[in-house]
Amino acid sequence: MPPDPRHLNISVAQLSAFCHAALNHTGLSQEDIRTTIDVLVTTDTWGVFTHGTKSLRGYLRRLHGGGLRPGGRPRIVSEGPAWAMVDADSAIGMVGSTFAMRVAMAKARVAGLGYVGVRNSCHFGAAGYYTSMAAAENMIGIAMANDIPSVSAPGSRGAVLGSNPIAFAVPTGDSRPIMLDMATSAVAGGKVYAAAALGKPIPTGWIIDAEGLPTTDPKLLPHAASLVPMAGHKGYGIAILIETLAGILTGASIAGHVLSWSFGDPGSPTDHGAAFLAWNVEAMMPFRQAQGGPGQTFSARVRQTMDEIRSAPKAKGVDRIYLPGEMEWEHRERALRDGIPLPEDVWATLRELAKERGIPGLPSSPAQEHV
Amino acid sequence: MPPDPRHLNISVAQLSAFCHAALNHTGLSQEDIRTTIDVLVTTDTWGVFTHGTKSLRGYLRRLHGGGLRPGGRPRIVSEGPAWAMVDADSAIGMVGSTFAMRVAMAKARVAGLGYVGVRNSCHFGAAGYYTSMAAAENMIGIAMANDIPSVSAPGSRGAVLGSNPIAFAVPTGDSRPIMLDMATSAVAGGKVYAAAALGKPIPTGWIIDAEGLPTTDPKLLPHAASLVPMAGHKGYGIAILIETLAGILTGASIAGHVLSWSFGDPGSPTDHGAAFLAWNVEAMMPFRQAQGGPGQTFSARVRQTMDEIRSAPKAKGVDRIYLPGEMEWEHRERALRDGIPLPEDVWATLRELAKERGIPGLPSSPAQEHV
Repeated sequence: MPPDPRHLNISVAQLSAFCHAALNHTGLSQEDIRTTIDVLVTTDTWGVFTHGTKSLRGYLRRLHGGGLRPGGRPRIVSEGPAWAMVDADSAIGMVGSTFAMRVAMAKARVAGLGYVGVRNSCHFGAAGYYTSMAAAENMIGIAMANDIPSVSAPGSRGAVLGSNPIAFAVPTGDSRPIMLDMATSAVAGGKVYAAAALGKPIPTGWIIDAEGLPTTDPKLLPHAASLVPMAGHKGYGIAILIETLAGILTGASIAGHVLSWSFGDPGSPTDHGAAFLAWNVEAMMPFRQAQGGPGQTFSARVRQTMDEIRSAPKAKGVDRIYLPGEMEWEHRERALRDGIPLPEDVWATLRELAKERGIPGLPSSPAQEHV
Repeated sequence: MPPDPRHLNISVAQLSAFCHAALNHTGLSQEDIRTTIDVLVTTDTWGVFTHGTKSLRGYLRRLHGGGLRPGGRPRIVSEGPAWAMVDADSAIGMVGSTFAMRVAMAKARVAGLGYVGVRNSCHFGAAGYYTSMAAAENMIGIAMANDIPSVSAPGSRGAVLGSNPIAFAVPTGDSRPIMLDMATSAVAGGKVYAAAALGKPIPTGWIIDAEGLPTTDPKLLPHAASLVPMAGHKGYGIAILIETLAGILTGASIAGHVLSWSFGDPGSPTDHGAAFLAWNVEAMMPFRQAQGGPGQTFSARVRQTMDEIRSAPKAKGVDRIYLPGEMEWEHRERALRDGIPLPEDVWATLRELAKERGIPGLPSSPAQEHV
């Protein structure tokens, strides 16, 4: 009999407890620990394993090194009716980013729309998490961030811009917003690192080598390779827009001036930039039908659009058209029921973390022998 | 001797005069005519020939048919501190869209940020034009629109969403903002139609046929083919975000409910939706250095970023890395000096228009014999 794949799983409670044990003696407040755990574990329940607890070991290195300030308190340094600039005070990325999205939503409640730029931030995990905060309050959310250069420009032979992620969420009237979280590179660096950790080659078209030529060797990244922008000049351009709103306008470090959160000196702040936008739908169009009320509602219009997309004629061999985020919400439902099917590369980094810092609570996983 | 390629050119003044003659007896006000001409001719000077005066014939059909209301007056129907919803009153797309971007900029002047949604609009030409309006006043601008379905979703065999364009512009402190104007399809439909008009095949990866299979025959579009989304699920997702902000939230028609501006009944409004965003940079960070003033400025940070991208090591055989929009601004400079090198498919539609409506002023072009 093949091994039951659920043996690889870890429950949300177990994974959260392990994260708590890891973060508990770093100087982070209990509230900041809860925030961090919720971002990372939620990300894993979505199946976005490149951006969940896999990063915990790296964050801890910075928390212990001082590059992330455990007592960092994000604060608004300037603001107007529909915007604010936040200095994240080198707090762990999840703390500064949830703070900033809440400010954007508060601005949107008053002004209809809110934009918040962040400086002195760090790697913030999955951008989608912050957009889901907005959607949970019937707002449209957008989140983006800059990062160290890992992506080439059309015509460059090396990395010029970060993979500069952008995510959005659109509330649908139930607990599953439409949600997309994407790198502006052809693929996220995390997917290349995951392949490298597993010793697997990657498809051509993901990265170019130091000469600017395609390669299938994921181990070249980042020292001798760079990612390729999504759709060529289009992804390159969108990355520049993100660099503008998350980096240039916020006062954060820009592109090559950002410090690597995983490879840089753990004692120095990385000074990433980020940006968050929220639209208060209800201010612009009724979200739900008032009892007996007339007119169109946002949620009905979204759901009609979703239904029309889903019911479109399918390509040969395809039996379902997915809305963005639908797979992630289904992963989450299964994860809450059956546990999170953490892939081996995540198990491996959690085991290393448990060992090097003597953190208890990681269940002994039979994973390694199954891989 | 080969023909002088400048014989194909038309001066900005000549092309503008022809457009004026074409629009002058439609009931449009002189101001609306000037607006329309500036959008279309500026677009041609950028070399974006799929979205400039090539569309004039189609717009005239609608102006004469009544689907575009020559006397249409866009108006704000609801608003808040940082947003407004505009009913474009089925005015020609350039009139409703310039109105809406001006409202977004006015909101941004007060609130820092402005979002304006538009319904009862029509095809608005090149989205980049509206973003350049914002950049000209040192604002960051974004423009987007929905359209009739022409792009497949991952897994669909037919068109599900429009090519839903998005453009942005970032002011740089001189007259050449960073600017990108892109369809969320792998390529814009206009490029496929241009190939069809020239009888040329297109590369695979641009469209799929009615079975969902790749084809190189541009003539299949739109009746028996659909465009492919840019970067697969990423372009599909971004198109949904654009549909949300330009269509769902604005009260415009959504996706399959929009009427085709080029193939639909010219007597019926198309009810396109659009959205415009403006960031008032100066509210958030000094744009230029005050004399002797301290601190960082937005324009210096943008220009440093541009310089760093430009000076990155080049791939083999490449001697220059372009910023988005740089080619367009150089095209425009040459066009203002040497005339606009209109391609033959644009000349052809302008000649047809001149003939069918008896419009004078189109210079006899030697173009046809050179192609």
